[in-house]
Amino acid sequence: MRETVKNVALSSDGSAVCIVDQTLLPGELRYVELRDREGMYEAIKALRVRGAPAIGIFAAYCVYVLARGYTAEEFFPRLDADCDYLISCRPTAVNLSRQVERMRALAHAMDGCRAAEITQALGREAKAIHEEDIAMCRAISEAGLSLLHPGDTVLTHCNAGPLATSEYGTGLGPLLLAAERGVDIKAYVDETRPLLQGARLTAWELQNAGVDCTLICDNMAALAMKQGRIQAVLAGCDRMAANGDAANKIGTSGAAIIAAHYGVPVYILLPSSTIDLACPTGADIPIEERDGEEIRSLWYEKPMAPAGVKCWDPAFDVTDHSLITAVVTEKGVVYPPYDVNLRQLFG
Amino acid sequence: MRETVKNVALSSDGSAVCIVDQTLLPGELRYVELRDREGMYEAIKALRVRGAPAIGIFAAYCVYVLARGYTAEEFFPRLDADCDYLISCRPTAVNLSRQVERMRALAHAMDGCRAAEITQALGREAKAIHEEDIAMCRAISEAGLSLLHPGDTVLTHCNAGPLATSEYGTGLGPLLLAAERGVDIKAYVDETRPLLQGARLTAWELQNAGVDCTLICDNMAALAMKQGRIQAVLAGCDRMAANGDAANKIGTSGAAIIAAHYGVPVYILLPSSTIDLACPTGADIPIEERDGEEIRSLWYEKPMAPAGVKCWDPAFDVTDHSLITAVVTEKGVVYPPYDVNLRQLFG
Repeated sequence: MRETVKNVALSSDGSAVCIVDQTLLPGELRYVELRDREGMYEAIKALRVRGAPAIGIFAAYCVYVLARGYTAEEFFPRLDADCDYLISCRPTAVNLSRQVERMRALAHAMDGCRAAEITQALGREAKAIHEEDIAMCRAISEAGLSLLHPGDTVLTHCNAGPLATSEYGTGLGPLLLAAERGVDIKAYVDETRPLLQGARLTAWELQNAGVDCTLICDNMAALAMKQGRIQAVLAGCDRMAANGDAANKIGTSGAAIIAAHYGVPVYILLPSSTIDLACPTGADIPIEERDGEEIRSLWYEKPMAPAGVKCWDPAFDVTDHSLITAVVTEKGVVYPPYDVNLRQLFG
Repeated sequence: MRETVKNVALSSDGSAVCIVDQTLLPGELRYVELRDREGMYEAIKALRVRGAPAIGIFAAYCVYVLARGYTAEEFFPRLDADCDYLISCRPTAVNLSRQVERMRALAHAMDGCRAAEITQALGREAKAIHEEDIAMCRAISEAGLSLLHPGDTVLTHCNAGPLATSEYGTGLGPLLLAAERGVDIKAYVDETRPLLQGARLTAWELQNAGVDCTLICDNMAALAMKQGRIQAVLAGCDRMAANGDAANKIGTSGAAIIAAHYGVPVYILLPSSTIDLACPTGADIPIEERDGEEIRSLWYEKPMAPAGVKCWDPAFDVTDHSLITAVVTEKGVVYPPYDVNLRQLFG
């Protein structure tokens, strides 16, 4: 069995939350223990822990660790203050507020119980949140692996692996599961400009898990497909519209168009909670545009573009549902027509 | 009129060849004067001068400058030795040997004339080689510009500009001509991983020429086309097969597939000498694979990928002729069917 990197975990005595400092990867694998709220806040802010599900799990453990230090008298005021403080760190990260609020609601529902009892329940709840995510990722991974064949090589884009979630990840899950079972599935890894999540994180995770992986520049995927090197594209998803249009890291839609051209299937793997039935199509999903400095000069030793050159730096794109062969969720695999079949997923 | 950067020129007294040291761009624009054969050799080897046509022009001027130093007795032995020496620097660069051999043949044809006369003729020949390239680039640029409309924005890939050729370039020529004439043509510039010729050279050349340009990562072109930001793709070509299949910098074929998906025309601009009628299809063009270190760690301050991760690093890909809207040469614009019409170009 593969060695699991614990991106988020509780210390054995329960007094700290341990994380892998993702800002140091792939150069260094350093675990950090966080005991006070300022350190926890900073870890989220500085992206030492990243990926929406991972942040949610981390924050749930943080609430438990902090609650262990409250006296009975100050319990609820301090709990509420710490929950508000943690949520304020990244106000748009929906998993962060969702899991912190779940922890807070449990505690308040136990008002009248002893502080030690409530704290114990918070510990169990954080563990449950973590285990639910593991189970969900495992179900997505199983469903995804069922679509692949031994000997297949897949293309990955960005990072939807354990570092961003728990244990298996979403987009990378089938690869990790295959490695665990000795099934031969290989990967080409898009480096994923401009932030290089593929090169820095995905390649590192796959290498760690013993998956045979090959790093390429994003613009090399077309030749790889033309030469028959790739049998499927696996990608995660940040938000899926009701018609199946999928917002994901910039470059996903281009890879999907090229895959369609060469007859390579495209699988989008995601928790069903990412499907937004209230959002009719991808045209309704706003695209975040970032500071072009990450194209011009981030990472580089010397200037790689003329000073002051204009950059356009969209962080996401939307892959049209017509390009998606199947949507893979913890509830199973969904095929077109997505406008009908995604809705059925929710009964 | 725009300020022209002289990538290759003869010094005013004829005693040196002047080049822009391209290895310092875009950080610094430094002109270097080369007087001895060792310096000339090193300038080619170290890519201070790069681009097949530019290397040919440079080498022709070098032969002239070196010949000025020969006495009558030693003229031909030294000429032959210097020609062989220069050609040996990059044996696969066809323009280098072609132009040096053209200079050598002229000199030998004048055997019996005075050394000073031969040297003068060599000076005229080098100038002629340079002017032929300028005229050819101008004709390609005119033909390319005829396909664009005021207000258009084009996508460029890699660098096929003046630095690689002379004055106008091939793929960038229409943009430079438009800027000179005050015609509003804008550009999105693919950074062109892994060697970043788009970010380092094309963005710099377009900015210098006053062309409104915006740098993007290669994987952003799909979203730009989807949003209607791009009206044409312009690319150069390293070698075109008789059926119109076009080998060019890695990433060109992916951009062309995405362009076809969104109905954006793809124009390949090249000297007709780049069309190889002896090569039936793109399948007959070998693809150079380079050392993956340029993906893993070149340019970067710290490791951007796990140590020892496998890389696949093809330098070129072949764009299928079915994706090419028109081929633009100095002899005019060629449309499909290319297997018939390219052959007609040569009468």
